Amino acid sequence: MINVIGIGQNRENMTLGAVRAIKESDVIVGYKKYVAQISDLVSDKEIIKKGMGDEIARAQLAIDKSLSGQTVSLISSGDPGVFGMANVLYQIISRYDEDIDVKVYPGVSAANYAADKLGAPLNDYANISLSNILTPLSEIEKKLEFALKANLVIAIYNPISKTRKEPFRRFIKTVLKIKGENALIGIVDSTYEPAKETIVKIKDLTEDMVNMSCTLIVGNDLTYMQEDKLITPRGYVIKSKIHPLSSDHYEKFLNGEISHGPNRECEFYPCHYEGQYCDFCYCPFYPCGDSSTGGQWIKGKGVWNCKECMWVHEKEAVDCLRKPLEELLEEVDDLKAKKKTLLKLRRACLLKNNPYDL
Amino acid sequence: MINVIGIGQNRENMTLGAVRAIKESDVIVGYKKYVAQISDLVSDKEIIKKGMGDEIARAQLAIDKSLSGQTVSLISSGDPGVFGMANVLYQIISRYDEDIDVKVYPGVSAANYAADKLGAPLNDYANISLSNILTPLSEIEKKLEFALKANLVIAIYNPISKTRKEPFRRFIKTVLKIKGENALIGIVDSTYEPAKETIVKIKDLTEDMVNMSCTLIVGNDLTYMQEDKLITPRGYVIKSKIHPLSSDHYEKFLNGEISHGPNRECEFYPCHYEGQYCDFCYCPFYPCGDSSTGGQWIKGKGVWNCKECMWVHEKEAVDCLRKPLEELLEEVDDLKAKKKTLLKLRRACLLKNNPYDL
Ligand code: SF4
Ligand code: SF4
Repeated sequence: MINVIGIGQNRENMTLGAVRAIKESDVIVGYKKYVAQISDLVSDKEIIKKGMGDEIARAQLAIDKSLSGQTVSLISSGDPGVFGMANVLYQIISRYDEDIDVKVYPGVSAANYAADKLGAPLNDYANISLSNILTPLSEIEKKLEFALKANLVIAIYNPISKTRKEPFRRFIKTVLKIKGENALIGIVDSTYEPAKETIVKIKDLTEDMVNMSCTLIVGNDLTYMQEDKLITPRGYVIKSKIHPLSSDHYEKFLNGEISHGPNRECEFYPCHYEGQYCDFCYCPFYPCGDSSTGGQWIKGKGVWNCKECMWVHEKEAVDCLRKPLEELLEEVDDLKAKKKTLLKLRRACLLKNNPYDL
Repeated sequence: MINVIGIGQNRENMTLGAVRAIKESDVIVGYKKYVAQISDLVSDKEIIKKGMGDEIARAQLAIDKSLSGQTVSLISSGDPGVFGMANVLYQIISRYDEDIDVKVYPGVSAANYAADKLGAPLNDYANISLSNILTPLSEIEKKLEFALKANLVIAIYNPISKTRKEPFRRFIKTVLKIKGENALIGIVDSTYEPAKETIVKIKDLTEDMVNMSCTLIVGNDLTYMQEDKLITPRGYVIKSKIHPLSSDHYEKFLNGEISHGPNRECEFYPCHYEGQYCDFCYCPFYPCGDSSTGGQWIKGKGVWNCKECMWVHEKEAVDCLRKPLEELLEEVDDLKAKKKTLLKLRRACLLKNNPYDL
């Protein structure tokens, strides 16, 4: 019997099942650093420690010990299925005629540990390893490119090592190319205990900030900083009345009385900037609750403040929103009644996706 | 103080930290199904259960209780950072003037739990939710498309609900379009305890196989079945001697004596199929140990058998491999000495990536 056990990052996030399975084992096989993390649990066991590169030797040893009738725990950091021991073990087991029982104990993966340290940066996301020991650089770069273009958040495993710096350089270049210099990067460094978090813009990220014990989180187009936390908004519906001035505006909008583009006849024009589009003088999404475009709560007042959000006055946004909004709104009350659909429309235009396919 | 706690999928994969933090709390706030999972730990606490849709109410309640001086555990299934309570909580906390301490306890996410049940299907992978309650369909479809084109494995969260079937239909269509009808899909259904696994081809996947308690894993171009397990090979180097016949062949290859294309003069031609390319009569990657192209171990003998692998005799493969291989090999021994680089070249051509950028 082989238990492939994910021990997470530290004792706190080790699972009850992992502790129990380790206690019930005769033999512990693992990379020496990971075995050290559980040394107090295994003092009465046969312990086989191996070096970092010896994954195959470790899998092989676990199989040999198991075939001799012992219960083996094969130790993996994080989760065994995420760049851990599970794949290798199954590949090597296929050499054997004998039935070998395998049970995988899932663990907290480094991406989840890192994300939870940084705040709440995940939404749809990709886990990508930068190790090019057995994976071509062209493949790694392609995965990064597509994941960034898909607007997935990305968790980066194995970012760099002393002898392996090229993938990290490519990573920086690719993020700069696709996201621009302000993309937010969270770094969680597990050489410290507790791990240390840093958040930087991609333009400020350098090799010396990162080592092989780091996990990186690359924000998506909506990710923002809230004090010292990295947040990717999931979206939620805030119940709220329609302001009378907004109600008047959308009455006119529905009657076709709002002209398209800048409204230079308005006595307040330009209330934000010369050239602004005034179609949505009152934002149809108010309050959106999404700080990624610059809005924020007035703390302690419960009032949503749009002062820094110019998005709804930009030509591109208005061009995307206007027609689908005309179709969605049958009456002014729909600003409230169809709020979920409106927030999807907002998101589609913000991320340049098809606003007719919600 | 608010502890946002990931309780995993069951007691086995709950973390030690989560158990401790729950025990030290005064108040437990959570969706009723998740609170039921930990009922034995919370009998002495104030318990506030809410419905599925009431995420904001739950976050709000946790904040209120925390502001009144109590230690609150806000319960999340899996990991709080993966489509869980962490994002919503931070977004709502930003309304408040007061400092509210938040600590997130990571948990085993549904993708890891599902993958570890299915075998070892993960490699680089994406987590994508099909919930279109606040995310446009166009955005979900784009993410799926790019992730599939990047050859990421994909873990699908929230695949379907009684009222929300369109995203799942799109998902099937998109996988069929990009991967073809044989793409492997693992389904882990947590309505059963223990959860039930099924593996099907995308062409055989139907709506009735899936419900809102399922997590799906979509294999990549290398994923294969090994008995009842779903495996995505990570690659590993098998140490092995160069066979004398192979050595002879590559001696000639290096001297430019092997012609390009089918070798109709060979007395064994066609040993596999009419039209096969014979440049690599002996596979330069032998033994690759990668069952995704059809090779496998002869069980119990420790011999790698290529009988089912035609890949290295296909025109497309040979066209991709020939030149870079000529550059890589300086002498026949490089078949052994440069094995890692050769395996990367193999992978680049197999996945149609640039074979000069390893
Ligand atoms: S103006 Fe901007 S921040 Fe304000 S509600 Fe509209 S989209 Fe949101
Ligand atoms: S012929 Fe196919 S299975 Fe055999 S070593 Fe070559 S690539 Fe691998």
